[in-house]
Amino acid sequence: MHILITNDDGYTSKGLQALIEMARQFGDITVVAPQYPQSAMSNAVSIGKLLRMVPVGNPDGFPEKGIERYYCSGTPVDCVKMALNLLFDTRRPDLLLSGVNHGFNGSSAVLYSGTLAATREGALYKIPSLAFSLNDHHANADFSASIYYGKQIIEKFIASPPAPYTYVNVNIPQGSIDEIRGIRLCRFGMGAWIKEIETRMDPYGHPYYWMVGEYENLEPGEPECDHNLLEQHYVTIVPHKIDNTNYPELERLKEVWKDLTRDRET
Amino acid sequence: MHILITNDDGYTSKGLQALIEMARQFGDITVVAPQYPQSAMSNAVSIGKLLRMVPVGNPDGFPEKGIERYYCSGTPVDCVKMALNLLFDTRRPDLLLSGVNHGFNGSSAVLYSGTLAATREGALYKIPSLAFSLNDHHANADFSASIYYGKQIIEKFIASPPAPYTYVNVNIPQGSIDEIRGIRLCRFGMGAWIKEIETRMDPYGHPYYWMVGEYENLEPGEPECDHNLLEQHYVTIVPHKIDNTNYPELERLKEVWKDLTRDRET
Repeated sequence: MHILITNDDGYTSKGLQALIEMARQFGDITVVAPQYPQSAMSNAVSIGKLLRMVPVGNPDGFPEKGIERYYCSGTPVDCVKMALNLLFDTRRPDLLLSGVNHGFNGSSAVLYSGTLAATREGALYKIPSLAFSLNDHHANADFSASIYYGKQIIEKFIASPPAPYTYVNVNIPQGSIDEIRGIRLCRFGMGAWIKEIETRMDPYGHPYYWMVGEYENLEPGEPECDHNLLEQHYVTIVPHKIDNTNYPELERLKEVWKDLTRDRET
Repeated sequence: MHILITNDDGYTSKGLQALIEMARQFGDITVVAPQYPQSAMSNAVSIGKLLRMVPVGNPDGFPEKGIERYYCSGTPVDCVKMALNLLFDTRRPDLLLSGVNHGFNGSSAVLYSGTLAATREGALYKIPSLAFSLNDHHANADFSASIYYGKQIIEKFIASPPAPYTYVNVNIPQGSIDEIRGIRLCRFGMGAWIKEIETRMDPYGHPYYWMVGEYENLEPGEPECDHNLLEQHYVTIVPHKIDNTNYPELERLKEVWKDLTRDRET
């Protein structure tokens, strides 16, 4: 089994090391991770920008068997595209893993997350793809529970992978193995950020802005949502799909917009 | 009615002018568009980067009634967040329009497109949101058919908007009004890019890479897909939703991964 690993925090992050530790018992590993942190880059790709990809060693300095590492100057999705086109070509990795992200990636964070975007890209190319995020954004976060639960999830994922064009999002709560109550399969929970812009004045009297924000849970108390289960100390697993056509809405609009879709009179 | 307009090609692009022309009969307009082209930025947001937003005049130099314009130094989603937080605050625009993009944004292009991402962001904040893209990437593309059909679509959209958390993707084929066969409501069609990386050598003997690619239609001949209908000279309209949980797959995995989701023994 050949595993492609990427992330959005960059190739030196502790979460990437944790993911490699989680995955190495399952096969050979190729890491292509961003040179610099690429959080909140979503599915951005570097069209019109020069890209670099450079082989790098184990940051611990020890040689490693069955692991190849590269950094790429672009986004997480650039990393996946570079890997698939330059390192795998017509072969495909058997598995794509992304993370472990330093920080929550449930609810609407999936829209912005580079960690999730890498698995969306993998799923588009029919590679079984799994994202891991720990609900702790500190650089030195404790990944031991992530590794403990992650191994079980990867094993199950390999044994019975999800449908094509589906990627799977795993969030791990903060805390020790003992503090976690179990694993739950659940749906995306709706939430959004508010108060997102902080205004400051530069020394020349011109305003500039920082993106900040408070998370607002739009489905508090709903038992089947990822953000709520995570809060209750469960590891959450959500299967997402590439095609997000709103099919019921499509049928409804075909009816209510009927006169719009008549062929043009000639 | 107050309309927020953005795009991903930048505040001076011809497609943005076309969208303003399309929309101005429906209400007052606030434009917040990127300072520089931001194609393929998806839902990327500028966390940790300084942002600017600057009022600008009509590029034609004529004063305009009912139109305010700003450029923002960030991505299309930054533009939406800046507008909602700084210009609209607790009010909301009645309508968000994005585009007209110079280039195709159907099929999997929706994953990467900044034009679509802006409407995804609008839908997350419950603003009726509509993206327009013309299947012609030239800077000087002819937008007259886009304006002609776009006005009809906006009118219908205002009269009977789609469900909450749904954004609507419109693609217009290249060509004159007479060459277009009509409008079709349809689903997302699966496709992906191949041969995406071109390798070159720099003068110092190190490789560098450009992102290129050929589009591969993965559902050729399927009658209900956006990419196929566009090829047949139809304007296509696809409703997309924010929540892309794969619900049938969630139910299946709850069954096949049952032993994984047992609560931890204590």
